[in-house]
Amino acid sequence: MLKARRDGYDGHGNVVVRAEDEAQAALTRLGRPAYAEAFVAFERELAVMVVRDQSGHIEVYPVVETQQDPALHICRVVLAPAEVPPAVAERAAGVARAAVEAVAGVGAFGVELFLLAGGQVCINELAPRPHNSGHYSIEACATSQFSNHVRAVLGAPLGSARMTVPAAAMVNLLGSGAAALTQADLSGALSVPDTYVHLYGKQESRPGRKMGHVTALGDTLEDALARARSAADRLHL
Amino acid sequence: MLKARRDGYDGHGNVVVRAEDEAQAALTRLGRPAYAEAFVAFERELAVMVVRDQSGHIEVYPVVETQQDPALHICRVVLAPAEVPPAVAERAAGVARAAVEAVAGVGAFGVELFLLAGGQVCINELAPRPHNSGHYSIEACATSQFSNHVRAVLGAPLGSARMTVPAAAMVNLLGSGAAALTQADLSGALSVPDTYVHLYGKQESRPGRKMGHVTALGDTLEDALARARSAADRLHL
Repeated sequence: MLKARRDGYDGHGNVVVRAEDEAQAALTRLGRPAYAEAFVAFERELAVMVVRDQSGHIEVYPVVETQQDPALHICRVVLAPAEVPPAVAERAAGVARAAVEAVAGVGAFGVELFLLAGGQVCINELAPRPHNSGHYSIEACATSQFSNHVRAVLGAPLGSARMTVPAAAMVNLLGSGAAALTQADLSGALSVPDTYVHLYGKQESRPGRKMGHVTALGDTLEDALARARSAADRLHL
Repeated sequence: MLKARRDGYDGHGNVVVRAEDEAQAALTRLGRPAYAEAFVAFERELAVMVVRDQSGHIEVYPVVETQQDPALHICRVVLAPAEVPPAVAERAAGVARAAVEAVAGVGAFGVELFLLAGGQVCINELAPRPHNSGHYSIEACATSQFSNHVRAVLGAPLGSARMTVPAAAMVNLLGSGAAALTQADLSGALSVPDTYVHLYGKQESRPGRKMGHVTALGDTLEDALARARSAADRLHL
C-alpha cells in the first residue's frame, strides 16, 4: 500500500501496488511524497481520539469501532465503546497515546487502527485534528473532542474524556445528490428519542459527501445504533 | 408591587409602591403599562423552563432553585434540581406548565416562581425565551433549552428535558469592571473537574453585567456548587 504522507483521508492518497512494476505509475498518480506499507488483512477497524495539551498531559477517549462503506471507503458508523476485550482496548489506547507522544502533538488527534486476528493492533493513520470518529464525544463524553482541542490550543488544561453514558452510536449522513432536506424528514429524525442530528450546512450534496451525522445514546450499542440508523434513514440529503 | 407588562428583567421594570400616593410617580417612572400585585413575602425562589412545540406538546425541565444577589436583583446561582419536597416540585411544574398553556406559547419559557411558607407557589414572571435559569440544561439535560427552543420554532418535535446527572449548579459571572480575563484565570477555572465555562464575548465589563456563567455537574448539589463557585471565583471579569 502506497500512502501519501500528507492530506490523505477516506482512502484518498492511498494506492494499492500489487507488483513492483506498478510502483512508479502509482507514485506519479499520487503526485506527492509517499510511504509504503505491507497490506494489512485486518478484522475490524478501531479508532481512538487522543488530545495532548501544551504541558504534555494527555486525555485518551474510549476506543471505538469504525465501520466503513466498502465501496466508498468512507466511515458510515462509529460504535462507542468498541466491543473488544479489555486487553485489546488497553492495547489500542496505549498505542494511540504513544503515537501522539512520539510526534509531541498538541491538540486533538484521530488515531485509526487495524484490529488483527489474535487481538493485535497496528496504526493505519493519524489525523492531526478533531476527527469523524470522535463526533460522538459531543453528547457522550464529559468533554467533547472539540472543547478539548480548543483547550489544548489555548494552553489551558484538558477536561475529562470519559464517557458519561453506557453506549453511543454515530451514523454519518452521506450525500445522495437528493433535493434539500424536508421539514417532514427533519421532524421524523428528531422524533427518535435521545438522538442528535448535526447538519453541516453544505450547500451542495454530492454522492458520498459527508453532509452531517447523527448520534444516539443508549444503554447498549444495539439500542443506540438502531435509533441512530432510524433517524439517519429519514434524512435524505 | 408595580410591574411593567413587558421588557422587565432582573428587577428592572418593578417598582415597590408602599402608599397610594406613590402610585402615580411610580407609573410615570416606569413609563409603560404596568400591573399591580400584592407584595409577596417568599421564602425561596424557584424557576422552571417550559418548552411548548407547535402541536402543543410540552417538555417541562426540572424545578430549580434560583438565588439572587440581594442588592443587584440579579441571579447569582441556580441549583438543579431544587431541594424541595416532591409535592412542591410537582406543584411548581404544574403551575409553570399551565402558565405556558394559558398563553398558548411556542418555544422556551422561563417561569419564575416564589416558594411561600407552607409549600405554596406563585408565579413571579414569565420570560418568553431561553432563560438564565435554564443554562444548566446545556450540560445537565438530554436536550438543552436552546435546542428545544429551536426545535419548537422550526415546527419539529421536542427532545427530552430530563436531567442526565444527579445534580448541577450554575454560577453567573457578573462584571466587576476588571481588566480582560487572563490566561491564568481561565486555566485555573478549567482545571476544576466537570465544570464548564461559558463566556459571552461581551467587550465591555460593567459592574453586575452578566459576562458569562459556569456550570458544574456532580453527584450532589453541594459538590457541584462548590466546584462551580471555585471556578467562578477564578474568573475576574
